[in-house]
Amino acid sequence: MTSKTSRRKFLKTALVGGAGVATAIPARADEYITQAMTTPGRPFTAYGMPSPHEADVKRLLRPPGISPGSGASQTPLEHLEGIITPNGLHYERHHNGVPDIDPATHKLLIHGLVKTPLEFSVDALLRYPRVSAIHFLECGGNSGALATPQPVQATAGGLHGLLSCAEWSGVNLGMLLDEAGVEPEGKWILAESGDAASLSRSIPLAEAHEQGILALFQNGERIRPEQGYPVRLLMPGWEGNLNIKWLHRIKVTPGPTMAKDETSKYSQSLKDGKARQFNFIQPVKSVITRPSGNMTMNGPGYYEISGLAWSGHGKITKVEISMDNGATWVEAEMPGPILPKCLTRFRLPWQWDGKAVVLQSRSTDDQGNVQPTRDQWKAPYSSAQFYQCNAIQCWQVGADNTVKNVYA
Amino acid sequence: MTSKTSRRKFLKTALVGGAGVATAIPARADEYITQAMTTPGRPFTAYGMPSPHEADVKRLLRPPGISPGSGASQTPLEHLEGIITPNGLHYERHHNGVPDIDPATHKLLIHGLVKTPLEFSVDALLRYPRVSAIHFLECGGNSGALATPQPVQATAGGLHGLLSCAEWSGVNLGMLLDEAGVEPEGKWILAESGDAASLSRSIPLAEAHEQGILALFQNGERIRPEQGYPVRLLMPGWEGNLNIKWLHRIKVTPGPTMAKDETSKYSQSLKDGKARQFNFIQPVKSVITRPSGNMTMNGPGYYEISGLAWSGHGKITKVEISMDNGATWVEAEMPGPILPKCLTRFRLPWQWDGKAVVLQSRSTDDQGNVQPTRDQWKAPYSSAQFYQCNAIQCWQVGADNTVKNVYA
Repeated sequence: MTSKTSRRKFLKTALVGGAGVATAIPARADEYITQAMTTPGRPFTAYGMPSPHEADVKRLLRPPGISPGSGASQTPLEHLEGIITPNGLHYERHHNGVPDIDPATHKLLIHGLVKTPLEFSVDALLRYPRVSAIHFLECGGNSGALATPQPVQATAGGLHGLLSCAEWSGVNLGMLLDEAGVEPEGKWILAESGDAASLSRSIPLAEAHEQGILALFQNGERIRPEQGYPVRLLMPGWEGNLNIKWLHRIKVTPGPTMAKDETSKYSQSLKDGKARQFNFIQPVKSVITRPSGNMTMNGPGYYEISGLAWSGHGKITKVEISMDNGATWVEAEMPGPILPKCLTRFRLPWQWDGKAVVLQSRSTDDQGNVQPTRDQWKAPYSSAQFYQCNAIQCWQVGADNTVKNVYA
Repeated sequence: MTSKTSRRKFLKTALVGGAGVATAIPARADEYITQAMTTPGRPFTAYGMPSPHEADVKRLLRPPGISPGSGASQTPLEHLEGIITPNGLHYERHHNGVPDIDPATHKLLIHGLVKTPLEFSVDALLRYPRVSAIHFLECGGNSGALATPQPVQATAGGLHGLLSCAEWSGVNLGMLLDEAGVEPEGKWILAESGDAASLSRSIPLAEAHEQGILALFQNGERIRPEQGYPVRLLMPGWEGNLNIKWLHRIKVTPGPTMAKDETSKYSQSLKDGKARQFNFIQPVKSVITRPSGNMTMNGPGYYEISGLAWSGHGKITKVEISMDNGATWVEAEMPGPILPKCLTRFRLPWQWDGKAVVLQSRSTDDQGNVQPTRDQWKAPYSSAQFYQCNAIQCWQVGADNTVKNVYA
């Protein structure tokens, strides 16, 4: 059962009488004076911050790794709405912390198999023609918790929050490669970070030339330090770690460099002992962010089921919701904007009868890719492999108002 | 001359040899070590901030008015890219500062000509079905400086920065009005702010019902205090002050209330001594943000002309650039997204010969509205009238590398 008709029927049922959570009050005088209405407010500020009442909406800090700067922080997806991630809450994945880089001295070098090695100051980069687009960014290790034998109990952000979305603006990498003049033997690039971890990754030249953006701006303002200030390589839809932050060097090479971050990590071990390397594109995926794991329901009644869908291959064409362990699916609404390689918000009204139920979302993209179940996703891999996990998330809503991550 | 052909020709001329601002360097070793590469970075943070090197990118604070909380701060448009305004830089216009409102006690009252007066807590509002959309917000007094007899010298943001754009998410007002049940005599609403200024405005019921959104989120996170936390009325495309912040009361009325903020202000005095009242929709408009007033050019060479276009009536269909005092116009590129009642970024490559030139942009929307010249805009009004000024901005780029606001 996946049809517009069934969705409409569902909408009608759910919305009868509205959400019904307002309080009817007796008519009363217009005067309705609060403390805020009798106290002058605070003056203007040069750069604003969220309300102190929202202090619990923050990045989820994972325990640090081998050093204070090694690890990740996650976007609290369950607290957010729409598709844009505010810059202060964009997820972080660092290998040696956030460097302090002075844009006045930072340089980007393009060298290797090029006719003219070039060095770009940030001021020089800012003078090139610019492009802007809204794209998601997702760590290759996002949702890896779903690969563990027992379901980890966490919020939507705790499980899937190595995921954010912003409007990125910058310069087409292809234009700069053309200016340097790539030699015929140049078939790949190595992009290297200018921090103390010097993370580097190999990318095929054709795709780097066609799709690569040197991002200088994030949601309008200059890119944040945690996302690679003053300049990051953006490969829209590609695995997070390929989007090299604090970019200071691009070398044109005859083949992949086999750098440490593409051999010791980010390869996918298979059941037969072999491994898949250079897994560039993040697969089609979705997650329900409301209800979210660890939240407490308010008993039976109206709820909006809502979440995010995305694909590194293109646009989302469909998100379906199941409430019966995958037997039947109802199409969710996607009011838009629906943009390529971008988070897409989906919504479905839901009248909960208070009985235990498992909620799942399944996305499809315009290349025909469909999000797999956990079993389908795990099938080819060794038990240790957790990269690019796009398995369907199952939230079990209990009659006791709990919401749990389950393997249904 | 406004055609795709002329634009292509222009592009080709401008891009020959690229921007040509990189430095050719001799080939050298891969080793390219900076201080940032030998120093561990700082650890993770719960809520991120811009780089300290970008401290000059801040809201432009106007001198305060009758009290520290009375006045405005402007978005520094000349420093920004794309269409999203980061929340920290969204413009502010307050009449008595920014109130501290506890969402646990804040209430929204819907009353007046309704069958059942209703009171909504913020928690209740959060349980209704939600909508999300990216819309600009512009103060009715934005660009009023162009009405003065002598051109004011300021940046793009200084002249036009009572303008921002965000993804807003919240609840359709129409749904809540339906739940309260509007009486047949109810034809308008009065929306009132819950701060110490209690700004209130009258809005026709039909439009409030169809278009009104109770915005709870701004660029993904909960709406900022300066933009109306915990809830603001959003009327997409309508004059800023109608988008009541800190919304605590909506009264359904038989007609307009003639509140102080719609009689003493925001009406437009005409040459014949009459005035236009209830000027709801912000007209079609554009501004070149690069080059911007007060900036210093780098001498002859390649530049990207870029800016923003918007209309409260719908989508932008065309932005044209003139470099010869309006004699001829070249169509700029709008790579998108082009969304209704939303900022649209435009771009045009430009090879500057170093001679004095006046740059102008002129936008057209999908309702056929065309941005007027300053003389055309001023024609019907008294000399004191400055609201909803959408006159074409003229930047004079001088041979001495200055950029000035002129009345061409």
